[in-house]
Amino acid sequence: MSFTKTDLLGLKDLSKEEILFIIETAEKLKEINGRDVKKVPTLKGKTVVNLFFEPSTRTRTSFEIAGKRLSADTINFSASSSSTSKGETLIDTVKNIEAMHSDIFVVRHAFSGSVKFIAENTKANVVNAGDGTNEHPTQALLDLMTIKEHKGGFEGLNVAIMGDIEHSRVARSNLWGMSKLGINVRLFGPKTMLPEHFKHFNCKICSSMEEAVENADVIMMLRIQRERQSNLLLPSLREYSKFFGLNKRALSLAKKDAIIMHPGPINRGVELPSILADSKQSVILEQVENGVAIRMAVLYLLSLNKKEG
Amino acid sequence: MSFTKTDLLGLKDLSKEEILFIIETAEKLKEINGRDVKKVPTLKGKTVVNLFFEPSTRTRTSFEIAGKRLSADTINFSASSSSTSKGETLIDTVKNIEAMHSDIFVVRHAFSGSVKFIAENTKANVVNAGDGTNEHPTQALLDLMTIKEHKGGFEGLNVAIMGDIEHSRVARSNLWGMSKLGINVRLFGPKTMLPEHFKHFNCKICSSMEEAVENADVIMMLRIQRERQSNLLLPSLREYSKFFGLNKRALSLAKKDAIIMHPGPINRGVELPSILADSKQSVILEQVENGVAIRMAVLYLLSLNKKEG
Amino acid sequence: MSFTKTDLLGLKDLSKEEILFIIETAEKLKEINGRDVKKVPTLKGKTVVNLFFEPSTRTRTSFEIAGKRLSADTINFSASSSSTSKGETLIDTVKNIEAMHSDIFVVRHAFSGSVKFIAENTKANVVNAGDGTNEHPTQALLDLMTIKEHKGGFEGLNVAIMGDIEHSRVARSNLWGMSKLGINVRLFGPKTMLPEHFKHFNCKICSSMEEAVENADVIMMLRIQRERQSNLLLPSLREYSKFFGLNKRALSLAKKDAIIMHPGPINRGVELPSILADSKQSVILEQVENGVAIRMAVLYLLSLNKKEG
Repeated sequence: MSFTKTDLLGLKDLSKEEILFIIETAEKLKEINGRDVKKVPTLKGKTVVNLFFEPSTRTRTSFEIAGKRLSADTINFSASSSSTSKGETLIDTVKNIEAMHSDIFVVRHAFSGSVKFIAENTKANVVNAGDGTNEHPTQALLDLMTIKEHKGGFEGLNVAIMGDIEHSRVARSNLWGMSKLGINVRLFGPKTMLPEHFKHFNCKICSSMEEAVENADVIMMLRIQRERQSNLLLPSLREYSKFFGLNKRALSLAKKDAIIMHPGPINRGVELPSILADSKQSVILEQVENGVAIRMAVLYLLSLNKKEG
Repeated sequence: MSFTKTDLLGLKDLSKEEILFIIETAEKLKEINGRDVKKVPTLKGKTVVNLFFEPSTRTRTSFEIAGKRLSADTINFSASSSSTSKGETLIDTVKNIEAMHSDIFVVRHAFSGSVKFIAENTKANVVNAGDGTNEHPTQALLDLMTIKEHKGGFEGLNVAIMGDIEHSRVARSNLWGMSKLGINVRLFGPKTMLPEHFKHFNCKICSSMEEAVENADVIMMLRIQRERQSNLLLPSLREYSKFFGLNKRALSLAKKDAIIMHPGPINRGVELPSILADSKQSVILEQVENGVAIRMAVLYLLSLNKKEG
Repeated sequence: MSFTKTDLLGLKDLSKEEILFIIETAEKLKEINGRDVKKVPTLKGKTVVNLFFEPSTRTRTSFEIAGKRLSADTINFSASSSSTSKGETLIDTVKNIEAMHSDIFVVRHAFSGSVKFIAENTKANVVNAGDGTNEHPTQALLDLMTIKEHKGGFEGLNVAIMGDIEHSRVARSNLWGMSKLGINVRLFGPKTMLPEHFKHFNCKICSSMEEAVENADVIMMLRIQRERQSNLLLPSLREYSKFFGLNKRALSLAKKDAIIMHPGPINRGVELPSILADSKQSVILEQVENGVAIRMAVLYLLSLNKKEG
């Protein structure tokens, strides 16, 4: 197939075939990361700008490494300390960096929809690196790549996503992707974080952890995003851990070869006890490793598609 | 001609011929920025250090991109969080980074004259990226390059510079340059921001916007620099916009093909209404684009001239 | 000889032969820094991550320049603003960056022993760039390289280290190294900063500056580390300068060709008056210059030795 998208805004916008194609491309590029000389000249002379309106050291570093392994010039533009704080509009900031002949923007922003707004207003290719509670597509793609490595495919898998579903752009991107790939998704979490309207994703909203985990192939724990919560009906961390953290007893209901995922950073002892985070079933560091490969694939594929002027 | 300067401190120090030569060099280098592979090996193995004692994301990014497109190793040294805050003197900081065999320093500092002081005390080439209210030479050079692209030359042009003249290093650098190029400059702004002694630049201090704009080829609006003002006789933003912001009626007094410039970031609705900032007469984003080319030219030309030592 | 260490944690762990070998390697690499094109392809395609849990612009810059001159991809991971502040454990942060196929970590951390802890838990090579009050090995190596350049060797030299000995990781690393190289070390400083138990380094604890400096080949002044002191029995800066700062009279007791060293940044007028800091006997900027060469040597030598998987 040929990949013709000029921006990666979310898995909502990708077809099943596009999702699979990005993952297959990443599988090929992953090999570069294991080489002695981890670098190919693919994006030499291209300018990739990390435009982060919200701080994120880890995701930014993953994109920066991906860009450098493809030989792109990577620029970190920390927008919080920049002109936007001097009263400049978001689009003026973007148009300015674009005018310096930037090829790709990797954008993180606190507001849902803002990255799409940017993409509609720039000639550069845009990658959404997380917009509010909307989507975080490269995270979902690296999750899916990791699932494929362990399970061989997607159709008919049972995946339990547990935790703060409502505030999680990771969950939302995975829900879009997994629906398209024929995965049976079960959601579980505190009632205040588990919105009923998520049923439209064609997933099962579970009322107990046991129901979500039973016979699961994949258990994906989400991070408590304290900074995104406005609801006062929050469980304390101790309560959260007791009622919503994964434990060995719950895990025993899943398939014997079930894998445990987490987008990081882990709150050890809250979402996951260390005995599970560090167990053989945990694939958390493979997710991180695949993240670089997925981001290399996305940067590469988008760079092939120029926007109409 | 041959360019023999070892530092670029201000347009005050450049001859007319030197200004024209830098612009011509930038015109040639601008083509690189439009290429598919935007990179030449000119400064390979040179170390360019952005030494910013005052925060500036945009100018720093423009210099960083310029350095990388010439294949230099670019280092961002954010001096605010560095040893100067531990009691080290300015020159000790500079001597230290110089001792690491840095080739070019790009320096921004809050104090007028500080960049000259640094240049006198280092063997590295120095580019002034803005010193207090003194000069911002690469900004004036990119402004002049943009004017030349639209007007074909400089001699006899009418240029209105309007706004906070007194606190603007952009205005001061342009005044030095435009005087040398035979441009008729008219200044207009709030009285508290329009010092009488600027007459020594051989420009016209206007008492109304109409007087400044009439028959103008170029209208250059300046940014309100709230952070640099100590005078209490300030107009509010609403008053500023009403009395000192450009509007369609004033613009109609200029030549039909007059261009509108702004060094950015724009306070939309204050210095310029959006209808003018986004009009066909606005060349604001071309200024940004030319900024990278000018900075490439300056880095390249200075690198040819080693200091005696 | 062959260098087989996979991490550089401190001079405590290095043999005399290993110390000399690193310095000899740095002497060869130093030549690159004087070239017109200061770059060799040695570490092309390797990823060097500066993992700084404590801010340090200068040391980080020296490592960044060293990495870039060897053509490595260098990533600055400012850990203070990262996931560790979101509750992630130190080792989880390290394992995450490791999973992105990082080759070398350059780590600075406020706690003594933390860098060793990291090295024991990662497959990447680790360089200690300063851990608490424990060690700062590349600083001691560049100090020793500078001494060798001026004195031809080490055996039997008299070195006075003066100042805040107790809180100085620079002093501690030098004490380990100098003991192994047969240097006679004399320590002098305020009693609150001069712990008796340092005698185990086989050095002389002096009760006066005269005693420390007499017949010295090298005088190494340390920086007052106000941020690391908890003891209230501190001299004021004025008292410190009077009683513990180097002066011409004290210097006259040393050998005529004694050199003056300081790890920087200098508090001028406190540890050293300007007349000595800027004198011909001062080798402070040579130390900085040698720092890049030492760091190139360390990055290069470690990169040859992969850890067992």
